[in-house]
Formats: sequence, C-alpha cells, structure tokens
Amino acid sequence: MVGKLGILAGAGELPRRMIEACRAADREFFVLAFRDEVDPAILTDVPHATIRLGAAGEGFRLLHEAGVDEIVFAGGLKRPTVTSLRPDWRAAKFFARIGYRALGDNGLLSAVIEELEGEGFKVVGADSVLGGNLAPVGAFGRVTPDAQAAADIAHGVTVARALGTLDIGQAVVIQQGIVLGVEAIEGTDALIARCAALRREGPGGVLVKVAKPAQERRADLPTIGVRTVSACSEAGLRGIAVEAGSTIVIDRAGVVAAADQAQLFVVGVEPS
Amino acid sequence: MVGKLGILAGAGELPRRMIEACRAADREFFVLAFRDEVDPAILTDVPHATIRLGAAGEGFRLLHEAGVDEIVFAGGLKRPTVTSLRPDWRAAKFFARIGYRALGDNGLLSAVIEELEGEGFKVVGADSVLGGNLAPVGAFGRVTPDAQAAADIAHGVTVARALGTLDIGQAVVIQQGIVLGVEAIEGTDALIARCAALRREGPGGVLVKVAKPAQERRADLPTIGVRTVSACSEAGLRGIAVEAGSTIVIDRAGVVAAADQAQLFVVGVEPS
Repeated sequence: MVGKLGILAGAGELPRRMIEACRAADREFFVLAFRDEVDPAILTDVPHATIRLGAAGEGFRLLHEAGVDEIVFAGGLKRPTVTSLRPDWRAAKFFARIGYRALGDNGLLSAVIEELEGEGFKVVGADSVLGGNLAPVGAFGRVTPDAQAAADIAHGVTVARALGTLDIGQAVVIQQGIVLGVEAIEGTDALIARCAALRREGPGGVLVKVAKPAQERRADLPTIGVRTVSACSEAGLRGIAVEAGSTIVIDRAGVVAAADQAQLFVVGVEPS
Repeated sequence: MVGKLGILAGAGELPRRMIEACRAADREFFVLAFRDEVDPAILTDVPHATIRLGAAGEGFRLLHEAGVDEIVFAGGLKRPTVTSLRPDWRAAKFFARIGYRALGDNGLLSAVIEELEGEGFKVVGADSVLGGNLAPVGAFGRVTPDAQAAADIAHGVTVARALGTLDIGQAVVIQQGIVLGVEAIEGTDALIARCAALRREGPGGVLVKVAKPAQERRADLPTIGVRTVSACSEAGLRGIAVEAGSTIVIDRAGVVAAADQAQLFVVGVEPS
C-alpha cells in the first residue's frame, strides 16, 4: 500500500493537480500550504494546514501529526532572503548549517530534501504522483518548427543549459538567433511577458525551457501548462521547446488544443 | 596630427560626450547618426548625416565623403533582425558572408569592425577618445561595500563573466546571494527597473557589470553614468560594481556626487 502523501504546496496549478491525482487514485493526502503562495480556493474541503515559509519546526510537527509517509513538492515558492524568512529555531539551525546565502536554488532544494529525509519522510518527484505527465520527444500538436525555429531551439538549449549549470534559471527566449531574455528569479511568466516588448520584426521567438543539468528531480522540475501556451501566444512567440523526460506537462490535451488553436508549436527535445 | 574622427552614434549619453571631447581637443569630427537611436537634439550645429541601420553602402559613402580617417562606436543600437534591418546591397553581401544569425553581439561587432577596416578606416576604442574615463580599482565615492555586498559582488562577477562567455549580456543584479535578474537584449536600464519589483526584504542588491571575456574593446565596452546611479537608487539597490580598466565612466565627478548623495557605493573590481 502506498503511504499517505504530504503535498508541500506553493503557487501555480500544480498543487490542485496533485490533489486531483490523489483523489483519482483514492490515495490519502495532506496539504501543507505556504501562506501568500497557495491559492486558498484549492484548499476547500481539503485536509490541510497553512504555515509561513520560515516555520520549519511547525511544518515538521504538522506533517508528523497528519501521519504523512511520502512528501512531494508542488508549485513555486518565491525564494525569500533570510531577513524576510523570519526563520523559527528549527529553520535557523538548518540555515546556519547549510550556509543559505552561498546556495543556488537547486543546492538549497537538495538540502531541504535531505532535511526532510532526516525526519523520516520519503521525498518523491512530482512526476511519480502525476504519472505519465512528463513531456515526450517530438511535436505535441499539429504545428512543427521550421528551420529558423529549429535553429533558435538549438541555440536556446545551449544557452539554457549553461544558465542551469550556474543554477540561475531554466528558461530563455530566442528570436532569429538573438537572445531576447533570460530567466532568473522573476519566473517564466514574467520572462515571456517582458519579451513581448523586446520582440523584433519577422518570424517570432521561441521559449526554451530545460532542467538544470544537476537538477534535483524531486523538486522544481520545469513545468508548462495551458497558461504557458496562452502567454507565449500573447507575447508573439511561435512556439515552446521543453526537455523531454524532464518537464511536467500539466493537462497535455489542453496544451495541445491551445497550441493548435494559437498556431504555436510545442515540442519535446531529446535530453543531451 | 590626429585624423578626422567619424562617430557612429547610437542611443544614450556617449555620442554627446564624444562630440564634447572632440570640441575640447579641437579635433575635426563627423557624426553618422542611426535613425531612431540618436537623440536628435545633440546633432544641432554638428556636422552629421542620419541613416537607417541597414544602409551600409550609404554609410560608407558618407564617411568617405566626409574625409573620415578614424572611427569610433558611441552608444547603443537595438540589434535588429535581418527582416527589420532591410539591408541594402552592401549590407546584404556582408550578412551573407558572416552568417548574421549565428553570431552573438560581440562576434557581430568584430565582423563590422573588420568590414570598416577593409574600407580603409581605423577603428579606435571609445576610451581612447574620452581619455581617462575608464573605471579605476576601488571605491569611487564615500560609501564602500560591507561584507554581504562584497559577497554579492563576487558572486555577480562569476555569473556575469559566464553570461559574457555566452555573449548574452554584461550585467546582473544580485541580492543576498540571490540572482534577481540577468541582462540579455533589454539593456541595463530595463534590468535595473525590473529588479525593483523583484527586490527581497533586508539589505538591497548590487548591480554588477563586466566586459565580456572575449569583448571587442573597440565597441560596446560596459558604460555607466549618473543615470545608472539614479536608476539603481530608485530600484533600491545598494551599489554598483564594474570591471576596472574595461568600463567607461561618463562624468565621473557627477557619478561620485550622485552616489554619495544616494548613499550608494560604486566600485571598480580588479579584472581577473
């Protein structure tokens, strides 16, 4: 029997999808929701508790009390500075040990996972809960990249991998060989919106999103959904390329329908 | 005797500073201004012609007719796509040869410089005209970085150099170890403005700007001025770090006064 799942819930569509997946599989679950990140509407009739991000001691207590066995990360968290985090005693001890300021996002997440496992929880990847939601290789819908778009994708993968190696971000926008924008902490939605204003004439750009080379796969895998497609369409982009096997596609049927409707391509690229 | 200087003028303060430097040195000059980039106000009573960026043949003719010997690049140009450039015959031939789409900014500028030298012009660096305007090592004004800021500067230099190696951009903003933003084609002003909204609580961030490792020093050296200081101050940043010996500081006295007034530090960092 699969144990009770603890969903550490942040922003975006992923927490709601996880809840639906648990219900569909008749699996017991408990949501630990981070205040100011989670959409409260998804918590109605859901077993949950809401805490602030810095309250690690309280978080561990709630997860233990709920009888959680496995834990999954779902959705984005705005990474706070130590000052704004107001860490409780448990969190402060953790940060003192790992040296918070020296770690990139990926290094930090790995340390958090180790801490959770030290408490006896098993941390699993979002893809293992959402089963079969990883991007396959090739075009998802009817539209496919032309030669210019294929060149932009190849260039974008090179740039995005290099950024990932630096643990900076996962996404870039390339148009006709020009790097229009690079994602740091602002997130992919903000990157896409900004690139609308930076757009050049002629064939539009491509959003390329890849996993960081040393990506902790149990947290923060690249994610796209219907909203990503509509944002790209509004920004005048021609398509989206993601890393096959390492990108969670939320609602693939919806993504394909939206992409076909907007005449955008969405493709999974072979991992290198 | 120093020959007549052709100033290839784009956006920003640099073209006006170049004109002033020529007048102060009693040096003959001619401004070739790129339409939609140059502030037309600076062209009053100045020997000049205005052309569109794709009109290379006309540009060469104008420079030859004006009797120009040396050429200097001054100010930013929005890099266009081939479509929007509407290259004339001369430009089209050039782009066909170099493979425009495959080149980053730095590679493109190097190719343009080669082309100008093939026409018999000597291309010189902005620093050689503005003499003594390169950033020195150390703090410019009264404020100096504390330990957290020094750590952010060191991290920023690492990240910015890596981005430069990819020929993407020159600038990053780091706050308490977190990469708030990374410059691509939007330029440093837009990067700074965006980071105001991404700011975390606690000690503010630092703008770090360095030359690309393979930087063509006769074009596109990193530049800061009074406007950079006021933009950083408005965005809640604590200071600016630039690469000593490779960054043009426009109006250093004004920069120091503005930085002291805003309680910001401005420091030159040893090149690696």
